[in-house]
Amino acid sequence: MGPHPTVAAIRLAVRRVLHDVLTASTDPHPLVLAACSGGADSMALAAALAFEAPRLGVRAGAVTVDHGLQAGSALRAQEVAGRLRGLGLDPVDAVCVTVGRQGGPEAAARDARYAALDATAEAHGAAAVLLGHTRDDQAETVLLGLARGSGTRSLSGMAAVSGTGGRYRRPFLLLDRDTVRKGCLAQGITVWEDPHNHDPAYTRSRVRHEALPVLEKSLGKGVVEALARTAQLSRDDADALDQWAADAQADAAGDDGSLDALRLYALPAAVRRRVLRRAAIAAGSPPGFLFARHIEEVDRLVTDWHGQKALNLPGGVAARRANGRLVFSPS
Amino acid sequence: MGPHPTVAAIRLAVRRVLHDVLTASTDPHPLVLAACSGGADSMALAAALAFEAPRLGVRAGAVTVDHGLQAGSALRAQEVAGRLRGLGLDPVDAVCVTVGRQGGPEAAARDARYAALDATAEAHGAAAVLLGHTRDDQAETVLLGLARGSGTRSLSGMAAVSGTGGRYRRPFLLLDRDTVRKGCLAQGITVWEDPHNHDPAYTRSRVRHEALPVLEKSLGKGVVEALARTAQLSRDDADALDQWAADAQADAAGDDGSLDALRLYALPAAVRRRVLRRAAIAAGSPPGFLFARHIEEVDRLVTDWHGQKALNLPGGVAARRANGRLVFSPS
Repeated sequence: MGPHPTVAAIRLAVRRVLHDVLTASTDPHPLVLAACSGGADSMALAAALAFEAPRLGVRAGAVTVDHGLQAGSALRAQEVAGRLRGLGLDPVDAVCVTVGRQGGPEAAARDARYAALDATAEAHGAAAVLLGHTRDDQAETVLLGLARGSGTRSLSGMAAVSGTGGRYRRPFLLLDRDTVRKGCLAQGITVWEDPHNHDPAYTRSRVRHEALPVLEKSLGKGVVEALARTAQLSRDDADALDQWAADAQADAAGDDGSLDALRLYALPAAVRRRVLRRAAIAAGSPPGFLFARHIEEVDRLVTDWHGQKALNLPGGVAARRANGRLVFSPS
Repeated sequence: MGPHPTVAAIRLAVRRVLHDVLTASTDPHPLVLAACSGGADSMALAAALAFEAPRLGVRAGAVTVDHGLQAGSALRAQEVAGRLRGLGLDPVDAVCVTVGRQGGPEAAARDARYAALDATAEAHGAAAVLLGHTRDDQAETVLLGLARGSGTRSLSGMAAVSGTGGRYRRPFLLLDRDTVRKGCLAQGITVWEDPHNHDPAYTRSRVRHEALPVLEKSLGKGVVEALARTAQLSRDDADALDQWAADAQADAAGDDGSLDALRLYALPAAVRRRVLRRAAIAAGSPPGFLFARHIEEVDRLVTDWHGQKALNLPGGVAARRANGRLVFSPS
């Protein structure tokens, strides 16, 4: 008798990613780490990695991050690490981080977590770090991006492969959370649910427990799948438009980096605004502070030129038009 | 004392559109019709048109459509027409339509309505038909498109200008419903609320009364604005990608319309899939039946060629690869 169908699905998803890692690696026995909070999704991931890796000659380890945000979190991280070792994973690191405040509590925790994962991967020379995000997490991420209203890139969710050299891989991005959780149950894996996942103070928790259920009620059961598909399509579209913008920027740029206004004028608005954004960032404007309204104002130097003054952009960058060219420089 | 600020905002929005219509028209006194259900949004639109048009030498009329879906709807349409005449609009038509079943009740009603509006505009030689859709309607349309999960174009909502020759114009697309309704109240305009707008049998009604309020609670008050901004950005992105796909199709096509597989291979996935979709539609595949999975299968003839057989697409179209070219033909 084979494993429970959910366990088979989980393992297959991990096996496929391990095949990819092996193909991309020069080491015939690369090390792959599972990032694990102790919750059902990442425990299922760790168990599947522990099962599949030896069959492919891959070395398998894990890392759990203690965010230090709850009483007893250090003890909990040690418990999780113990369970991961119990699955046969080695090395297993429990890493403690200090969460700052920049960008809000969720963004700060995420930044600290990825910094710790990066450092652990590098310390062990890991070829890949697996993350347990499911299709449901992807749907939530798309809704959170939608709330920002900043366009196609912000709707593209999480990538199956991301990070430096494609280090991060998300084998469960096409599996629904229900499948993964049933797989956990079927294997009798002990899990620990982060209470933050149910804390309505966190936007993602509200999206998960309030917004998505009501969207399913209003729009039908396929909403999670539709959101995940939107992520993939949006990512492809954003990639294509970024490529166009990079080519168009190279075409329009002179030796000094200034941009030919007539060439910009001939571009579709979506591409032209991306070129202007790239040029502003290259001149030193910080992406997180450069908003659509800034780019729209710069765009008017191209589409509605009537001798405007230089514009001040975030990060002390000035954009001005001179002799038919757009120049971005320190203001 | 000037008008109430909401009335001023409504009138300004209509005035801007009338300026555009005048600029585009060869007739110095073009006829502009307001499409009016009798509800607050479209009554506000009709009143603003009646106020602004004479000041610009524009002739102003209106049309109300009786969908024949409720008892007494013919009488109601006559009442609305009477109110529109009372605003000084002329001509005012009450048009009765028969709603079919194709595509579900909402799509069928919409198709019948636009056919009637088109016919009325042509009968009177109208230069434009104004529609009362607000930013809130736009946000709902984006959510409905999101539920389809079919990508950037389906997220682009309603256009400010659409239809044959740009006939349809939506002056209120950047105004929120609340502003428009307050403007109605401030002018003491009698309105009639279509009970369908509150009928949970209609998807749009559920989106309006269930989904959007919960999204606002979960994600913050800016959700409607973010959705409307997403519509604009998605529309620009989809337009740019469609342009790229049209150019790429022309580049890759031979005299017989077949496509060079190597040229297709070099394109970003988002552009290549659009080219393949265009080619399938040009060969006779009906757009409404051509799904992402069809295009993905055709795409594998380019990206994963290993001698596959011809593929059958909806509408009796076959796609095959021969001599390094993709051929779409009757199957």
